[in-house]
Amino acid sequence: MIRVGIAGFGNIGRGVEKAVCAAEDMELVAVFTRRDPSTIKLDMSTAPVFSASAAEKMIQEIDVMILCGGSATDLAIQGPHFASLFSTVDSFDTHAKIPEYLDIMDDAAQSTTAIVSTGWDPGLFSMMRALSEAVIPSGATYTFWGKGVSQGHSDAIRRIEGVAHAVQYTVPLQDAIDLVRSGTLPELETRQKHLRECYVVAKPDADKAAIKTAIKTMPNYFADYDTVVHFIEREELLANHSTMPHGGMVLRSGATGETKQGMEFSLNLASNPEFTGSVMTAYARAAHRMALEGLYGAKTVFDVPLSYLAPSNRATWIKELL
Amino acid sequence: MIRVGIAGFGNIGRGVEKAVCAAEDMELVAVFTRRDPSTIKLDMSTAPVFSASAAEKMIQEIDVMILCGGSATDLAIQGPHFASLFSTVDSFDTHAKIPEYLDIMDDAAQSTTAIVSTGWDPGLFSMMRALSEAVIPSGATYTFWGKGVSQGHSDAIRRIEGVAHAVQYTVPLQDAIDLVRSGTLPELETRQKHLRECYVVAKPDADKAAIKTAIKTMPNYFADYDTVVHFIEREELLANHSTMPHGGMVLRSGATGETKQGMEFSLNLASNPEFTGSVMTAYARAAHRMALEGLYGAKTVFDVPLSYLAPSNRATWIKELL
Repeated sequence: MIRVGIAGFGNIGRGVEKAVCAAEDMELVAVFTRRDPSTIKLDMSTAPVFSASAAEKMIQEIDVMILCGGSATDLAIQGPHFASLFSTVDSFDTHAKIPEYLDIMDDAAQSTTAIVSTGWDPGLFSMMRALSEAVIPSGATYTFWGKGVSQGHSDAIRRIEGVAHAVQYTVPLQDAIDLVRSGTLPELETRQKHLRECYVVAKPDADKAAIKTAIKTMPNYFADYDTVVHFIEREELLANHSTMPHGGMVLRSGATGETKQGMEFSLNLASNPEFTGSVMTAYARAAHRMALEGLYGAKTVFDVPLSYLAPSNRATWIKELL
Repeated sequence: MIRVGIAGFGNIGRGVEKAVCAAEDMELVAVFTRRDPSTIKLDMSTAPVFSASAAEKMIQEIDVMILCGGSATDLAIQGPHFASLFSTVDSFDTHAKIPEYLDIMDDAAQSTTAIVSTGWDPGLFSMMRALSEAVIPSGATYTFWGKGVSQGHSDAIRRIEGVAHAVQYTVPLQDAIDLVRSGTLPELETRQKHLRECYVVAKPDADKAAIKTAIKTMPNYFADYDTVVHFIEREELLANHSTMPHGGMVLRSGATGETKQGMEFSLNLASNPEFTGSVMTAYARAAHRMALEGLYGAKTVFDVPLSYLAPSNRATWIKELL
């Protein structure tokens, strides 16, 4: 059994808990939190919840620590700390800072294996961008996200004065997907690829017109997109917009010589955090196996052979799936 | 520059030639054939064509030999022979015999790296079956092929008395794909998944009804499928059915707990042999790089980290694609 710890117990931590409990070759040893451990209730497991500082005493009891903190602030500190103690998996997703984070983790993972930036983007989508470039070298790659909830954009709306609640969906535009599929290698503007659709609960007496303008003109988040704003009641938001679906596609359109060749990968996820947790859990298996072989240091999804992810083993996969 | 040889110059060999010539980090050193070398004309390269027996004198001049022979008879002999001399890549595709072939190649590849069963099925599709099982452990995987030309089925028709020419398309059935996408994990019969569509040129005075019956009742090839037979003229066959498109999809339908999660991978190929050749060429890069690191022996697509396929390098992929 691979002995797993979870560091951080938000939505992704809960997804990891579910995936680890479902994996026949894993056991959840403990959850670590920076909150008061007594306030954390696990969904499925009877594993104990400890303060994050207790982890360093458990080096002998945990094989892999799955880091479920956020990229913005948590992982830059927690990542190297845990990687110096345990093999780790994380979903560090600030794309521009990954090389720097990878270096820091590589320094920390002297006798452990730290697989960084797993999940689906970065993660599976990155793998598809890479694989498709390798096998269709002449062409262009397009990534579409959604339809799905963007936590970052939802949070940005919630910070606007007069907004009580908000959920933002990123919606890929079918016309753009069709254009990519046509094989004409279109250059697509930001606005042509995705629509942003916002469901907003306004506070009583809030100025809805002002909220709408504030959303639509918000730099980085909305200004470059066509944005639709729907004002709804709190009850409707809770009833219809409280799950976290997501997904998207990576399309490679290209050619061998003049001969058109296309590749597509898509995800259709009813729960983004549960799927992300499931991917991280698969990579926890890989981290443990790589560490057993002395393959220490920080790794990315580009460095991990698929066989290390097998719930069974390499021979079974070769026999049954190759 | 990675110095590449091609062993066998049929459709896939031509696809490899095209891909190697397009790769900036590769040069085609020579093509080897069991036919009279003077009868072989390359499409793009000025590389020499030698008799297959000349290869063993060129160990110092070739880094990777891409084996373009067929699985049925060629590779069982040629594979281990070449793997004892060079790092190799092949597209051995007799699924049931892959474990045995892998063992033979592993014995032969004592100081070389032999990547077996690349291409797209086995190959990319195998990777997707594996990856999707790892990240969605609870669920079912479905592979659909086509619409595309099956060489084996076309050949089988051509062996029927009275048949002058034939092209067989494997056609995936949209109803089955939709059923899979619904997430109900259907158990699909062979007949429900694919249709077989045959374009046949009959010899003068041939008994078309007998040909049709012979096709539709042919065991293994057609008896388990709904098969449509079109008799056409030779000119129409040449005009409309002489390219070799193919493709297909791997779908994983499953759940994390009760939460539905779906993954799809699809290929839409205007030329099956050119794409297969392009995939093999990407794995030739990997074979060379693994051999340089002393990672000898027979490998599958499950064993090769994606970074070894990068036309650029790992750091570039991490920066640009992760």
